[in-house]
Amino acid sequence: MIEAASILKKIVEALKDLINETNIDFSETGISLQAMDSSHIALCNLLLRDDGFKTYRSDRTMTLGVNLSSLSKLLKCAGNDDEVRIFTDDDADQLNFSFESANKERVSEFTLKLMDIDADAVDIPEMDYQAVIDMSSSEFSRIIRDLGSVGEAVMIDATKQGVKFSSAGDAGKGSILLKHQKSVDGDSALATSIEINEPVSHSLALKFLSNFAKAAPLADRVSIHMIEDAPVMFEFKISEIGHIRYYLAPQIDDDE
Amino acid sequence: MIEAASILKKIVEALKDLINETNIDFSETGISLQAMDSSHIALCNLLLRDDGFKTYRSDRTMTLGVNLSSLSKLLKCAGNDDEVRIFTDDDADQLNFSFESANKERVSEFTLKLMDIDADAVDIPEMDYQAVIDMSSSEFSRIIRDLGSVGEAVMIDATKQGVKFSSAGDAGKGSILLKHQKSVDGDSALATSIEINEPVSHSLALKFLSNFAKAAPLADRVSIHMIEDAPVMFEFKISEIGHIRYYLAPQIDDDE
Amino acid sequence: MIEAASILKKIVEALKDLINETNIDFSETGISLQAMDSSHIALCNLLLRDDGFKTYRSDRTMTLGVNLSSLSKLLKCAGNDDEVRIFTDDDADQLNFSFESANKERVSEFTLKLMDIDADAVDIPEMDYQAVIDMSSSEFSRIIRDLGSVGEAVMIDATKQGVKFSSAGDAGKGSILLKHQKSVDGDSALATSIEINEPVSHSLALKFLSNFAKAAPLADRVSIHMIEDAPVMFEFKISEIGHIRYYLAPQIDDDE
Repeated sequence: MIEAASILKKIVEALKDLINETNIDFSETGISLQAMDSSHIALCNLLLRDDGFKTYRSDRTMTLGVNLSSLSKLLKCAGNDDEVRIFTDDDADQLNFSFESANKERVSEFTLKLMDIDADAVDIPEMDYQAVIDMSSSEFSRIIRDLGSVGEAVMIDATKQGVKFSSAGDAGKGSILLKHQKSVDGDSALATSIEINEPVSHSLALKFLSNFAKAAPLADRVSIHMIEDAPVMFEFKISEIGHIRYYLAPQIDDDE
Repeated sequence: MIEAASILKKIVEALKDLINETNIDFSETGISLQAMDSSHIALCNLLLRDDGFKTYRSDRTMTLGVNLSSLSKLLKCAGNDDEVRIFTDDDADQLNFSFESANKERVSEFTLKLMDIDADAVDIPEMDYQAVIDMSSSEFSRIIRDLGSVGEAVMIDATKQGVKFSSAGDAGKGSILLKHQKSVDGDSALATSIEINEPVSHSLALKFLSNFAKAAPLADRVSIHMIEDAPVMFEFKISEIGHIRYYLAPQIDDDE
Repeated sequence: MIEAASILKKIVEALKDLINETNIDFSETGISLQAMDSSHIALCNLLLRDDGFKTYRSDRTMTLGVNLSSLSKLLKCAGNDDEVRIFTDDDADQLNFSFESANKERVSEFTLKLMDIDADAVDIPEMDYQAVIDMSSSEFSRIIRDLGSVGEAVMIDATKQGVKFSSAGDAGKGSILLKHQKSVDGDSALATSIEINEPVSHSLALKFLSNFAKAAPLADRVSIHMIEDAPVMFEFKISEIGHIRYYLAPQIDDDE
């Protein structure tokens, strides 16, 4: 399979601080990954469809265990516009990468040792969410960074009128309100739209949200899916070829 | 009172490394602050006049104790072009901030807990200084940074001809001479002008000067006011609305 | 002698992490320096010819011992376009520097204390190298940086077809191949040219190569000179006026 290096780098950057080692599944229809963070609180799901690659072939389903921090270092050796080829043998204990510059004068080859990772498959039931917030991913990043200087948990309140992110800590408290709006000054990229059946609010651990925000370079928008008594789901779509989804269980605290 | 966020951020950045907690006085005529650094060697004075704000109202004189490092974090959550509103109640134990984006679609609200700070008022007598050096604030920053790699004290020598900053340390010594000049290549922004009755020189602790230099983003010019046997005063004017002044007692050392 | 500050800064940056203290020789024909790193594995040679300076005069041969990290700090106090003057007296225990801005309004003077350094002169025999690789110095830097995330040694294999840099470590291995080519898309700056009698390969400690790569800002090209059973030589030419050469003994390891 072949792909430009920059998108692969961004995907690994969005995962590596949450998940250290993970199995990646290669099947006929594409690449997928499902893993919990080391504290078993957040869950992450990656999907890259086969038709998103210039060439993709996987003769049978394979599960390869990789260390994401080693993979991140390896991908940093690719130029952003290099053509990337990833391949492995049938009885593979390593994954091979080649990076070729546009002018073909420079070819790098790297191999990553694979590992046996014992991980239970986690089934995620499809949910009928009460509220779906669709907003700018960079605005999401900024809010999480800003509230990070206030407290350790973020309350997300979704109503028909808008969505409010708030936090409290020793030095004071803070909140940011985004109004429901189809577009801002005719620019829909900045708009925040909220589809809602009934108001819902959840308190979430900020350190996980900071990790999720690292997917912002992959997608202009993030959608936040909420329902009572179930994890909140954050979805970043990766252009036409797939998505990263993060699931995080709400905190049960006094504010709720 | 309402003001653009960027100038408030710069003011707090210019103070927070010198002073951790301080009382701020709000009166009918504006906002002021006077505080010593924690080692009780340097003194800092801030004045912001009421007419510098779009709207300013203080029905009575209030003294509010704030932690400047918490305030700095809070202000970082404001966009540089956000309109800032600061307000408090009569029996306040907190100071409230609202930041509103230009398009009104985003409203953040933050509160800062106030504290009781026991600080003696310090009276600063007006002085008839022997020498006043008016120079570029970025040149001042650069000189302090450069001499920081040489020694721990800076000698400032003012004469009719110019001002010399010098320092000595284990590895050698260094000095920078700026000549008295109305303008440099017709550009008065770079000029250094010296009004002087009689030559004066003082040795000052470099670590405080480094702190004072953090006010350079607030003002194009700094004026250095010197007189024998009294603290040196560094004044940074904040556009039309006020100033930050730092006072530092000279070191008594062998060079003097 | 007088020279623009920026090139002097770059020279000291290229040396200071490898060599802490060194003697510098001033003679009628120019300035030179030869020193081993503190672990006595790598050797560095600097030459600056007298005609490379606007003015250069050295009445007799002098050997001055300097601390390069102090010299680096001192040179950071020079503006990049300042005219630099370096001078010393006959019975000197210090080296004097003056930096003058283009408009003459700012004159800085610094002195560096000299030290007695006991160093054996090292003679480097001229070699008839088997292979000479001439390549872009920024490409060299990038390869060393990339392989730094893989292992601790770099194998350089030179053949008629090209040069391959490779490394291996716990997480996997990597290699970069540059093909022999007079120019790339008509641009000779990117080309890699290899003059070779017979293939040669050496394994070198990556940490030294990282140090050598700090000379890349001084020169667009680096030439790598290899021969069996002798140190590899890396040469960076400093415009028309001289060079920095690094010598590094190959590692004897299993791969070789």
